[in-house]
Amino acid sequence: MVSIFSKIVLGEIPCYKIAETTDYLAFLDVFPLTTGHVLVIPKQETDNIFDLDNEQFAGLHLFSKIVADAVRKAIPCKKVGVAVIGLEVPHAHIHLVPINEVGDINFAKPKLKPAPEELAATAQAIRHFIA
Amino acid sequence: MVSIFSKIVLGEIPCYKIAETTDYLAFLDVFPLTTGHVLVIPKQETDNIFDLDNEQFAGLHLFSKIVADAVRKAIPCKKVGVAVIGLEVPHAHIHLVPINEVGDINFAKPKLKPAPEELAATAQAIRHFIA
Repeated sequence: MVSIFSKIVLGEIPCYKIAETTDYLAFLDVFPLTTGHVLVIPKQETDNIFDLDNEQFAGLHLFSKIVADAVRKAIPCKKVGVAVIGLEVPHAHIHLVPINEVGDINFAKPKLKPAPEELAATAQAIRHFIA
Repeated sequence: MVSIFSKIVLGEIPCYKIAETTDYLAFLDVFPLTTGHVLVIPKQETDNIFDLDNEQFAGLHLFSKIVADAVRKAIPCKKVGVAVIGLEVPHAHIHLVPINEVGDINFAKPKLKPAPEELAATAQAIRHFIA
């Protein structure tokens, strides 16, 4: 089955894109834990992130570092937190979440539901800092 | 100020070691979220993980991949979750946490307090699968 993230990669489902390379894609989580919450994925559909080969695994993380640097410049926060959970969508993804307290990364709590205009503005603010 | 993790690197504070290279160290979190919760650190003391240079950043993650592969072989779980928070100890560290539900990664909830014998057995079980 094609994952929802592969549908985003294919352009069948739209996204608020932050950055893209041949192998990787970063876009806003539309139900963020905090404002500026970004998902970073390999375009290659792999369930478990640790099943990526070393080159793809390192490349994905170096790509996420570029994105995280832009997030921390765009979004006021103490740190950009990182989480990989992988229990819901079977397509490896790294969550980058602007955090101010340890409880900000808790996927069991209710998510935000920002309006499209707000998501578009957040994406634009982060893209501004992508080198 | 020398971080508690640098004291572990220097051997001033003992740890339940999982794996070590010249640049990186993995050891059990003694107050784990779940059994098998491991911390992976660069020996170089850097507060924000995204401030590591690309070589150290990629190397740290590739080292964490080896450790995560051992954790998932040793500890029954659905996935090995990953988290980087960084609000408490100012020395970058990756949490590898065996998870079965999304709420398993929540640093605001009470931690486990396993007995030393239990920690030693967990460390030995994971080390068994380090290549």
